[in-house]
Amino acid sequence: MHIGIDIGGTNIACGIIDESGQLVFKKRMPSGGSREAIAILDDIAYLINELKIKAAGKINSIGIGVPGIVAKDKGYIYYCPNINLGRINMKEEIEKRTGLLTFVDNDGNLAALAEREVGVLKGVKNAVLLTLGTGIGAGIIVSGEMLRGANGLSSEVGHMVIGKNYYDCNCGKNGCFETFASGSALIGYTEKLLDESNKSSLLRNSKRINAKAIIDAAKKGDKLANESYSRFINYLGVGIVNLINILDPDIIAIGGGLANAGEFLTVPLKEKVESLLLVNDFPHAEIKIAKLGDDAGIIGAALLAKKMYKA
Amino acid sequence: MHIGIDIGGTNIACGIIDESGQLVFKKRMPSGGSREAIAILDDIAYLINELKIKAAGKINSIGIGVPGIVAKDKGYIYYCPNINLGRINMKEEIEKRTGLLTFVDNDGNLAALAEREVGVLKGVKNAVLLTLGTGIGAGIIVSGEMLRGANGLSSEVGHMVIGKNYYDCNCGKNGCFETFASGSALIGYTEKLLDESNKSSLLRNSKRINAKAIIDAAKKGDKLANESYSRFINYLGVGIVNLINILDPDIIAIGGGLANAGEFLTVPLKEKVESLLLVNDFPHAEIKIAKLGDDAGIIGAALLAKKMYKA
Repeated sequence: MHIGIDIGGTNIACGIIDESGQLVFKKRMPSGGSREAIAILDDIAYLINELKIKAAGKINSIGIGVPGIVAKDKGYIYYCPNINLGRINMKEEIEKRTGLLTFVDNDGNLAALAEREVGVLKGVKNAVLLTLGTGIGAGIIVSGEMLRGANGLSSEVGHMVIGKNYYDCNCGKNGCFETFASGSALIGYTEKLLDESNKSSLLRNSKRINAKAIIDAAKKGDKLANESYSRFINYLGVGIVNLINILDPDIIAIGGGLANAGEFLTVPLKEKVESLLLVNDFPHAEIKIAKLGDDAGIIGAALLAKKMYKA
Repeated sequence: MHIGIDIGGTNIACGIIDESGQLVFKKRMPSGGSREAIAILDDIAYLINELKIKAAGKINSIGIGVPGIVAKDKGYIYYCPNINLGRINMKEEIEKRTGLLTFVDNDGNLAALAEREVGVLKGVKNAVLLTLGTGIGAGIIVSGEMLRGANGLSSEVGHMVIGKNYYDCNCGKNGCFETFASGSALIGYTEKLLDESNKSSLLRNSKRINAKAIIDAAKKGDKLANESYSRFINYLGVGIVNLINILDPDIIAIGGGLANAGEFLTVPLKEKVESLLLVNDFPHAEIKIAKLGDDAGIIGAALLAKKMYKA
């Protein structure tokens, strides 16, 4: 069996897959991403040891997805804007702590790998998977192959500049896609609207404003929630049309926490995308909700562990 | 021998290549792109007949590069924002008028083909060629192959939204890359500065403001020209970093009329790009001036004609 770990800006999710690729156990915990790296690494090692016990020691290898720029061969994390894990050799740190062979890749690539192996991108030749969470992760498939680029740094779609925003991205630039169309962008803008106006809103009673609460309020017709959600959809559309204009994929799949909104996301999004396309009466990328939901990252990481262990 | 025609928003350039791929003759004329399509097509046919005479009838086929969205197999132009040739079957129209086998593709793809066969992208695995002219054309090479996308509509990089601009793109959107960083964008913004201020500028004495005049003035230290040129470089950098973040190519090559600026373009551009990269101490795309200059489009179109004629 193999362990898959999906490190996000908000949560760390982990799970075990068996030799047939089935997810047989999963668990999640808060990332506490602003803590020192050593505390986060120790937590991950602790999680792994729990999973080892769960699997009665029958673990062959570990795969880890990281929301940042990873030198995949070395397992070294160059850059990690949403969690304090930059400049760390993740492979070495986890192997040292657990004694298990560990492989590391970008989380968007791994989610796309999972969707391609067992999800919505199975058999698809040209595709983009976007994972909307704390940031925007992505995996890109071109001519049936994962796009890696010249230096393994491709698919950092979340840092594509698409406009001017009221705050800077963690990467230092202004206007990154993920500052408009990630889960945290949706939450941040909603909080801004709540702070800056006296408009009534169902969200004023929420103990904790998360993306789900905003979407639930928007569904109930809450004006403020809808204002924020519409802005989110509009910019998501702009970023997706950029990707269509550059890559012309068969499918754009939406994963991550926000994908739980289902048709409440895809119906207005498709409308926005169609309004921005260069040519309308021509085939263009279909927009679909990813199949594996929040599990894509865990499954992809575990599939990486399985593949590399065999190789 | 084969004829190559490069249709631009400002000029139509054409030439002849021999069987070894050498450009043996070239000529250009204004596009008059706002005229009716039939007048433009007749002009192109007239040009071709001139070239046929020049080549003493030894022409085997014609290749045409179009600044828009082309269904390459049918030779049909779906969309052409900067010249009035949308919704035209270019292949049929030219074959009817000239009796010569004709092949059509997007101009950016053809310029990239030329640079890959005989120019700066020879042997390069992952690359983007940007042609900066009336619009921004592009050709993308991934893993040694021309990127075409699912429907042959990829590489429309000029219509990637990268910010908010003071005027809308011909495509109807606001903020397209080519409204900030093409030749016409540079000219338009300079004219705006001249109109809206009383600042002295060498350009006030110019009979005709073109990109070359602006760059020459900027080189001489003209403040207004430098203000406009800096804005152009900044946005060009933003668009290029978007492409690096998505595609991670080995090389970004700059072609088209603006590429004549040489180091006056690449030196500040590299500085801007480096300031925006996610990771600096890691290999990243080299920025180079394309080798074939304005001839890339003609050579690429003629190479298409040669390839397809043989096939």
